[in-house]
Amino acid sequence: MKDQVAVIGVGCTKFGDLFETSYEELICEAAFEAFADAGIDPAEIQAAYLGTYMPGPSGGKAAVSLGDALRLYDIPITRVENYCATGTDAFRNGCLAIESGACDVVLVLGAEKLKDRGGRGLPRFGHPLLAKGNSAPGLFALAANRYMHTFGMGREMLAKVAVKNHYNGARNPKAHLRMEVTEEKVLKAPIIASPFGLFDCCPTTDGAAAAILCRADLAKRFRSDYIPVKGYGLAVTTGRPFFDPTFDYLGFRSTQMAARQAYKMAGATPRDISFAEVHDCFTWTEISNTEDLGFCEKGQGGSLVAEGRTSLSGDIPINPSGGLKSFGHPIGASGVRMIYECVKQLQGQGGERQVKNPKLGLAHNVGGPGAVSCVIILGNN
Amino acid sequence: MKDQVAVIGVGCTKFGDLFETSYEELICEAAFEAFADAGIDPAEIQAAYLGTYMPGPSGGKAAVSLGDALRLYDIPITRVENYCATGTDAFRNGCLAIESGACDVVLVLGAEKLKDRGGRGLPRFGHPLLAKGNSAPGLFALAANRYMHTFGMGREMLAKVAVKNHYNGARNPKAHLRMEVTEEKVLKAPIIASPFGLFDCCPTTDGAAAAILCRADLAKRFRSDYIPVKGYGLAVTTGRPFFDPTFDYLGFRSTQMAARQAYKMAGATPRDISFAEVHDCFTWTEISNTEDLGFCEKGQGGSLVAEGRTSLSGDIPINPSGGLKSFGHPIGASGVRMIYECVKQLQGQGGERQVKNPKLGLAHNVGGPGAVSCVIILGNN
Repeated sequence: MKDQVAVIGVGCTKFGDLFETSYEELICEAAFEAFADAGIDPAEIQAAYLGTYMPGPSGGKAAVSLGDALRLYDIPITRVENYCATGTDAFRNGCLAIESGACDVVLVLGAEKLKDRGGRGLPRFGHPLLAKGNSAPGLFALAANRYMHTFGMGREMLAKVAVKNHYNGARNPKAHLRMEVTEEKVLKAPIIASPFGLFDCCPTTDGAAAAILCRADLAKRFRSDYIPVKGYGLAVTTGRPFFDPTFDYLGFRSTQMAARQAYKMAGATPRDISFAEVHDCFTWTEISNTEDLGFCEKGQGGSLVAEGRTSLSGDIPINPSGGLKSFGHPIGASGVRMIYECVKQLQGQGGERQVKNPKLGLAHNVGGPGAVSCVIILGNN
Repeated sequence: MKDQVAVIGVGCTKFGDLFETSYEELICEAAFEAFADAGIDPAEIQAAYLGTYMPGPSGGKAAVSLGDALRLYDIPITRVENYCATGTDAFRNGCLAIESGACDVVLVLGAEKLKDRGGRGLPRFGHPLLAKGNSAPGLFALAANRYMHTFGMGREMLAKVAVKNHYNGARNPKAHLRMEVTEEKVLKAPIIASPFGLFDCCPTTDGAAAAILCRADLAKRFRSDYIPVKGYGLAVTTGRPFFDPTFDYLGFRSTQMAARQAYKMAGATPRDISFAEVHDCFTWTEISNTEDLGFCEKGQGGSLVAEGRTSLSGDIPINPSGGLKSFGHPIGASGVRMIYECVKQLQGQGGERQVKNPKLGLAHNVGGPGAVSCVIILGNN
């Protein structure tokens, strides 16, 4: 499987409060940017995967919306859904489709409209017993509190993640929240679910992103700086981690297992990764994920950010894009948007947020919360 | 890709009004029957695909529900959704995963709880302009009326499909509506959406079905009568066929295109198919689908059933299981349930509904309505 797939083009909409842009328009914008980037005629697309968590009143009709928006008819289009790992899992399935030999060129597209839900809002998730606080902030806060107690970490360490990611996002023209924040501003913001204040939480966002995958041996027909897919992994653990007696509230096994699969396939270790787009739905999540991905020991994720090692100029830049925190988190789009960032960075097109001489980039989603994780490794090692 | 995948085990719950059986219990029942059928330890499953159209209040949480129900942890589990073709498309993606080389043994499971929707009901689909009659019966009835006008066909021809499928389903212990009906009863039933009366419509059903896929060259380790996957196809056309000026209201291009892909891959023609499980959400749909699948010319589907050629003893038995009409239609489960029937028939385990010496079986879903179709061909040609 290794080295059989390459990314030959990527596209991404501006992320934000896009009330006046339809789901289909988002799909078009992301896809046509990717078609132009690859220099490909849409008629060459042989199959497509769409990552959308929640089609709905303003969220379109999944596979057929993609076909109609792009006039991609008569070919296979599959919608993939996997909580917050929807986008990266759609990408993983696109890789499988090429590796199977069934097709040579596949479009992977993640799209989500979260702001306009026709009054229905997001569905509640988690265990029915968690009737109170049964929300993403509420559940992740349970783990953050335990983690902070165990390792003696304060809220100022969380704030450093927000400061870093907003710094990066302010340098990214497509980010949702393009503004820097100070540690003081983060710490004084209203509390959403203790220890998370407003700036510890990613925003609710609309957006779409696209990637065009191709058989690696055909990729040079399209461009010389195509980006090989080196490895991927997906792991599902219990959907009720907070009721699992083996759960230590300090990190997520799904991320550890998905990363193990991806590193093994890539023939790489965490030390080989130049930078990573890591699922930072909350500031604590980034800290915990950097540990689960192997960039440091458990309990050291706070130091990693405090010492500037995850900054743009650090030895393992995390979320050069601005992350979910600043770039936004339209669920099904986020994973593909991370692929977009990895590809741009690896091609040296990161602009003001470019990291130095990257070789391997890693994209990571975790959702569920904590139940499912997907990891993709791209580049050349 | 051809001949790389085989089915080594299948399972299926009783279909019906299963208010007291949870989504997770349905998953367990179907999966453990398949594990036993394959003689496989669940720990040997390396990846899973779950087909569920609509997770929800009683519909579980998709991928993580499958993991939790079966304690299948740390492996990739992807939920696939593709309207009424959800189950067959999950199966198709399971094939791709094995053909990619990423894994040797994959569980494909379709599950759906439709009866208990927590008061929310099924989502409306179709174009917003179709505010009145914007339902599956309403939309398919538009096409049925045009078809009947064009070919001079009456309701009694539709009724013959219901009579046949109920006859078959009455001989199937797992079918939802296990009763025979007469042509007179079908014709005198209350009208749902003209020309469809109550017995022209499939019921709303709960159920689950499972199939275990394996690399074909490893299949004999599990059983000698494994069933090879010969071909598959998926095609998405416009999600608004009823607003497409090229739509003739006489059949669905998605089915024609998916069938073309599957026949090509299988190296087979419609004449090589011994029997088929065909998407009969309404009686007319079966008639039209048998044409679109190439079993007869356009306009001849009525004669096919009237002449008994699609009966159990005919030359091309259609829906020996009882079909959606009698077996029921829990959306994400239906396609995998069709695979279950194909495998049982090909192994000569069809019981009272066994067709004679089948070589190739075909499973077909169409949904959207009409926008997406998936075709799977199994057996030995």
